[in-house]
Amino acid sequence: MAERRIPAIGLAAALMLAPTALALAGPDVEQWRTDNGARVLYVHAPEIPLVDARVTFDAGSARDGDHPGSAHLASNLLMSGTSARGPDAIARALERHGADVSTGAERDMAWIKLRSLRDERHLRPVAQTVAAVLRDPAFAADEIERLKRQQRTALDEQEQSPGQIAKRLFWAAAYPGHPYGHHPLGSRDSIAAIERADLRAFHDRYYVAANATVAIVGSLERARARTLAQTLVGDLAQGQPAPALAPTPELDGDRTIRESFPSTQAHVVVGRPAVSRGDTDWPAFYIANHVLGGGGFTSRLFTEVREAEGLVYSVYSHATLMAAAGPFRIGFQTRGDRTERALSIVRAQLSRLLQEGPTDDEIEAAKRNIGGSFPLEIDSNDELVGYLSMMGFYGLRSDYLDYFPEAIDEAGRRAAHRALRERVGSAPRVTVIVGGDRSGQAGP
Amino acid sequence: MAERRIPAIGLAAALMLAPTALALAGPDVEQWRTDNGARVLYVHAPEIPLVDARVTFDAGSARDGDHPGSAHLASNLLMSGTSARGPDAIARALERHGADVSTGAERDMAWIKLRSLRDERHLRPVAQTVAAVLRDPAFAADEIERLKRQQRTALDEQEQSPGQIAKRLFWAAAYPGHPYGHHPLGSRDSIAAIERADLRAFHDRYYVAANATVAIVGSLERARARTLAQTLVGDLAQGQPAPALAPTPELDGDRTIRESFPSTQAHVVVGRPAVSRGDTDWPAFYIANHVLGGGGFTSRLFTEVREAEGLVYSVYSHATLMAAAGPFRIGFQTRGDRTERALSIVRAQLSRLLQEGPTDDEIEAAKRNIGGSFPLEIDSNDELVGYLSMMGFYGLRSDYLDYFPEAIDEAGRRAAHRALRERVGSAPRVTVIVGGDRSGQAGP
Repeated sequence: MAERRIPAIGLAAALMLAPTALALAGPDVEQWRTDNGARVLYVHAPEIPLVDARVTFDAGSARDGDHPGSAHLASNLLMSGTSARGPDAIARALERHGADVSTGAERDMAWIKLRSLRDERHLRPVAQTVAAVLRDPAFAADEIERLKRQQRTALDEQEQSPGQIAKRLFWAAAYPGHPYGHHPLGSRDSIAAIERADLRAFHDRYYVAANATVAIVGSLERARARTLAQTLVGDLAQGQPAPALAPTPELDGDRTIRESFPSTQAHVVVGRPAVSRGDTDWPAFYIANHVLGGGGFTSRLFTEVREAEGLVYSVYSHATLMAAAGPFRIGFQTRGDRTERALSIVRAQLSRLLQEGPTDDEIEAAKRNIGGSFPLEIDSNDELVGYLSMMGFYGLRSDYLDYFPEAIDEAGRRAAHRALRERVGSAPRVTVIVGGDRSGQAGP
Repeated sequence: MAERRIPAIGLAAALMLAPTALALAGPDVEQWRTDNGARVLYVHAPEIPLVDARVTFDAGSARDGDHPGSAHLASNLLMSGTSARGPDAIARALERHGADVSTGAERDMAWIKLRSLRDERHLRPVAQTVAAVLRDPAFAADEIERLKRQQRTALDEQEQSPGQIAKRLFWAAAYPGHPYGHHPLGSRDSIAAIERADLRAFHDRYYVAANATVAIVGSLERARARTLAQTLVGDLAQGQPAPALAPTPELDGDRTIRESFPSTQAHVVVGRPAVSRGDTDWPAFYIANHVLGGGGFTSRLFTEVREAEGLVYSVYSHATLMAAAGPFRIGFQTRGDRTERALSIVRAQLSRLLQEGPTDDEIEAAKRNIGGSFPLEIDSNDELVGYLSMMGFYGLRSDYLDYFPEAIDEAGRRAAHRALRERVGSAPRVTVIVGGDRSGQAGP
């Protein structure tokens, strides 16, 4: 039941790896729909006798409605038993066939993923188990209580981390009244208020075929991939896709939020809603952000804020691509008494880049860096399944894996500058500062 | 490079699952040594075409010597490149064959584990890669720096968690001057002081065949298991086993340590060094502890401290089995202003059990609970490999998996009482209290 989050930025960053390799590898993505309306994306990868698959639902915390935390809880409960089998029996059934299965949820999506041996004697029972888990979760009272406790404990732990607190406050302030604004885990009160009937209703509404994407990568032929997709989701109700999310609200002015915390380091996040998944300016924006603070040791923020004055240990900037505009964020940690100085340098660097744009040299360096600094393949089938899920979920063009590195290669200085200006520009921003209350450098 | 810790208590608790199943399943453990002196334990599990293996070295943080944190760093660096290949090339080589490989270290051991397809075309290159990683780690300067940063960040994060701080303080106070006393990650200063030559020397001394245990479970025949063990460790220097650890020091009196932390909950740990792995009184001790606070909802501590007065959310007691006497600990969280009340009830419960012993009914209930409340198999080959590693590492009898549940079954009230009295008795104890400074119940 380990949960793995695949933040959109992770996908985007990893896509960066691929310009050369994808041109070489050119994974051939086939798409179809099951009879009951689920989208399927499939890549044949014959090298190893394994199958990776992921079923994704538009059933993340943005669908929580009046019950914050329920999407997460529903996702976690999948592996907690069906009407026929308890959690231990399910775990044993999967292990007996050497399969790994796990679930997860974030703001946009909830998913279940599996890795199985290709051999039908193993793959079929594994797929049937996953299908049963999706179709017929028991939502047993004691399991609901157990997972509610777990979810509350996770919340409590996050409240002990200034970095996590800063994140939560940022989302709340940058997305007021929007379904992205609340914490995906919910709150202690909202978790307590969730009833079995709410989870049932959530499941009935969102765990349906028309709201699902199936991604498959493995050494099974197309016909068997069809059978696999059918086994996984063919018995789900057809249902309806989730409606489009509301656009993100415009902030009515810059806002700064401070929260005390007895740490020596202040955790700072600056940003605003900026880029949606599918935005055609994304490749240009990506390069601009690489120059600003996404490029590790060579980025302006790193050079100026860290190296020039030794103010911070780490500093980054990145954009998260989501169904509605995801956040562009600059984040850093610094000693409490240096917060203002670091913030002013960060702001000055962003303003300068917004005004003058990157140089040709920076653009070239960024492209080289993007193309050359990572392994030149998508070499994990599990990773590839992640991309396919993302493409299917957000309805991206089916040649996206080829298109994206090409678009990076073609984007120029001017496009990068424009994309950054239009998406971040002079619009209001949220600044969150947590901690740094304890003076001196010594820890406890 | 995900690290998974297998605390000894985890193994012990999981062993509990097994009485019936082991009697049924009776895994047939074969043992031999490689030519260069590594101990090998092997179980043939023909059901699925996978192989799980783990190579364990007596190279945990107890071997850090003057360089706290170096065992952990050396372990993490294994996957960071050999003289022939960088970390990305290694990750790709493993992924290309569908293998999972990870490393980890705790106080007693350091290990590398792998799961691979059984087919020789996949297993051989995977095993060769693991062998190269063990024999010839590059310890490249930039990777050392990167992992030092990572290790410092992990330390920083732990210092923001009152529970983690309590743990660290407990070990330091219960093991003064002993190699178990320092934090396995080291300190910021000790990490900074570790040089490449130190890591090299650590590796040359401890990553040798005579200091290694190889555990293999999978659908490969004995002859191929021999070949696999040979591939994994056959090219390591023979070397010497690590010397026995010093006995744990006697505490010269009860000691209470308080550390302030701005949490509403106080994190409390009470305990002392108690039981070594291989102690023949362990099964009896285990039952006594089950009655005290190891048995979940039915244990005395849970009933008295949680239910009777609602003082705590969770409370446990457990013993960690280690090469030198590992700690017996009672731990709980409670609201700051209730700490003393909760502590006095915990102490009273322990005293009463030490004095009067468990009742016959409790012993019977514990046995039923131990035998019945868990899945009745060791159903994961990965788990079984963990047991085998533990058995080999600590030199336990080769029928330990049969012996242990039988010994549990045979242990009586008197033996349980005596074991608890002798191992915990009236000897000095350490009490650590962290946090609970913030009043009221609301979080930030």
